[in-house]
Amino acid sequence: MLSCLLSFAQLNANQQRMEKRIAELAQFGKDANGRGYRVAYTKGDIEGRNYFISLMKNAALEVSIDAAGNIIGKRKGKNASLKPIAFGSHIDMVPDGGNYDGCVGSIGGLEIIEILNEKNIITEHPLELIIFSNEEGGTDGSAAMVGHFKEEALQLKSQSGLTIAEGIKAIGGNPSNIKLAARKKGDLTAFLELHIEQGGLLEKAKLQIGIVEGIVGIEHWEVTVDGFANHAGTTPMNMRSDALLAASKFIVAVNEEINKVKGRQVGTVGKIAAQPGAFNVIPGKVILGLEIRDLDYNKIWQLYKSIEQRAKAIETASGTKFTFTYQTNPSKPALTDKTIQDKIITSTKSLGFTYQYMQSGAGHDSQEMAMIAPVGMIFVPSVAGISHSPKEFTKGIDMANGANVLLQTILLIDKNK
Amino acid sequence: MLSCLLSFAQLNANQQRMEKRIAELAQFGKDANGRGYRVAYTKGDIEGRNYFISLMKNAALEVSIDAAGNIIGKRKGKNASLKPIAFGSHIDMVPDGGNYDGCVGSIGGLEIIEILNEKNIITEHPLELIIFSNEEGGTDGSAAMVGHFKEEALQLKSQSGLTIAEGIKAIGGNPSNIKLAARKKGDLTAFLELHIEQGGLLEKAKLQIGIVEGIVGIEHWEVTVDGFANHAGTTPMNMRSDALLAASKFIVAVNEEINKVKGRQVGTVGKIAAQPGAFNVIPGKVILGLEIRDLDYNKIWQLYKSIEQRAKAIETASGTKFTFTYQTNPSKPALTDKTIQDKIITSTKSLGFTYQYMQSGAGHDSQEMAMIAPVGMIFVPSVAGISHSPKEFTKGIDMANGANVLLQTILLIDKNK
Repeated sequence: MLSCLLSFAQLNANQQRMEKRIAELAQFGKDANGRGYRVAYTKGDIEGRNYFISLMKNAALEVSIDAAGNIIGKRKGKNASLKPIAFGSHIDMVPDGGNYDGCVGSIGGLEIIEILNEKNIITEHPLELIIFSNEEGGTDGSAAMVGHFKEEALQLKSQSGLTIAEGIKAIGGNPSNIKLAARKKGDLTAFLELHIEQGGLLEKAKLQIGIVEGIVGIEHWEVTVDGFANHAGTTPMNMRSDALLAASKFIVAVNEEINKVKGRQVGTVGKIAAQPGAFNVIPGKVILGLEIRDLDYNKIWQLYKSIEQRAKAIETASGTKFTFTYQTNPSKPALTDKTIQDKIITSTKSLGFTYQYMQSGAGHDSQEMAMIAPVGMIFVPSVAGISHSPKEFTKGIDMANGANVLLQTILLIDKNK
Repeated sequence: MLSCLLSFAQLNANQQRMEKRIAELAQFGKDANGRGYRVAYTKGDIEGRNYFISLMKNAALEVSIDAAGNIIGKRKGKNASLKPIAFGSHIDMVPDGGNYDGCVGSIGGLEIIEILNEKNIITEHPLELIIFSNEEGGTDGSAAMVGHFKEEALQLKSQSGLTIAEGIKAIGGNPSNIKLAARKKGDLTAFLELHIEQGGLLEKAKLQIGIVEGIVGIEHWEVTVDGFANHAGTTPMNMRSDALLAASKFIVAVNEEINKVKGRQVGTVGKIAAQPGAFNVIPGKVILGLEIRDLDYNKIWQLYKSIEQRAKAIETASGTKFTFTYQTNPSKPALTDKTIQDKIITSTKSLGFTYQYMQSGAGHDSQEMAMIAPVGMIFVPSVAGISHSPKEFTKGIDMANGANVLLQTILLIDKNK
């Protein structure tokens, strides 16, 4: 194994090229205020995809677009009977998003192809660089690729204003035959994704590489607190049934319950609305959004049960009523492949980088891909842990390090070492 | 005094007539869903006013509309050199409001005139029944009557969709000469208002009459909590600056501080908005509305200071920033006249009604009128304390009791007993 790594030691990602491409891609998709708006299916997304497709073609990839609008760039291997090693990410963004989420893995994946081309290396396995469609809207492209996309979702409005079906058509897909995008379990030797961490742990720990053990599951509940709206002047404090006061106690309780248990679970109340919503009326109804994430599905539900208990106590004390409505787009936890994790570590060590195991708190296309292939995921640091924001930033050297780890890992898988 | 009361003992409000007029007035001003919408300056308000004016004219009142759109019905007294005894309320309502707030005092005031007419009683003082314009929009009519209306407010949009100036014109006022509506201190012998309690204290205590000692002052602050918006999946619990969690602790603290002190003060957070407001984003900013009411102006500010201290502690612990923006439409506390309070009590006792002293937690036209005249205010019970709601209700017998106390009090003031 060591000999193999040594023979590839002169392979190095071109940091300047990666930085230049990040900057070029960032020019596509701006809103009227100049903020990043390369939201899936918009003009900016289409222009960014065209730019990326031209880069892929220049790198001699055989480019196609599947029924779900995923861009697939193929590179032949020595042995056509082997299943491809695939890697990639996405280039769409959230509104007012940043230039690194998805783009680092897409440009990093293309960098692998560039290096292999430059060094005239042909791998044993065919390679596929995949740029998934509409990741930020709900990993739609990768869901379709694993046969997990629900066709009724085609009629939903996407952030672009188009329905998903219209959007897929706009980017060259074929929504009425979206099933054709599906691949079977075993169709790929592996899927690998390089991504920015989107958190501050690597930077805080001064580490270069994160080896992702898994992608957390996500569960959402809409919580309705019913009290009684009344005049804020004439209703004495001890005769109130204040839905916002009860909701506030609940939000504090959620935080306490999540923090009470050891581990990396997170729980968030990210949205709230109070009715009727005036200075001088005691709120009669509050609706809020509860999210819990963890790598362990059972732990999510244990935490939920303890939060529900706290709500019951608040209910009794405040004369309000809590109703929890489970939201039906759960995202199950997805573990990465242990063998691939080991290969990422071998590559990281051989390149002399520092690293740690970690979980991904964000959802990714890899989460879907884990349903049909062994998956590996490599994180690089995000400055100040900021993501989904124009302030999102990852240093050029960290991008290049990530691409180098990705390349060495692909080569180890290719050699089955 | 007793002889005088005895001589008027046969004077009795006609409960059926009052109930009938409440029901008739309720027919004016409905929205598309049939809910009460007799909002000032709307078609419903104008129709309701026309109905009321016709009742006043039938009762032989000399009706005029002042520059602010207040309806004034005059009845001559024996001694034209005496300053009038005025009484009344309003007939406009909040959106989706009830049929008793304001209407009981308006119809109750008219009932006084009806009884005096039926019994051929001419008082010493001239009498004035005043129906104030746009009470719910901010006691605009009474503010104008006491010379307290700010002319720049004429250009503000009212709930009706019209500007205040357009609205005043629509109801027959003269906005460009609104100063003409102002009266001087001493122009009235007294102003009296009968009103529903809009709270549940009288009903809970099983009492018939509330003698209002004063109308609370109201202060509003907009509170901004700045945290840092971040990914709810990738940001560990101990690296968050969650504006909604800090705001929730603040709302609980407001409640604790208000309840910590003895008295009848109330404090409310009635509105809240969290940004960006999604299941999966830690809120970076929360804006909420804080209101404090009390009869004692200094106490309001002491409570505010203690709340501000609590916010400072939350700030430090959570890494957020609290900013308090004082809202510039404060309503100062207004005390009723002690002599008139005594006359109300005498009347109440003579009629055999149970009573208690109380404060008014809601703002009223009487609050403005206290700037130019000695003011008295009489409360009758609200069923379940519900107000500003279609469920608002006051029993016919309680309305009649209130009108009888109002009448006897006017006669005591008239006789200067």
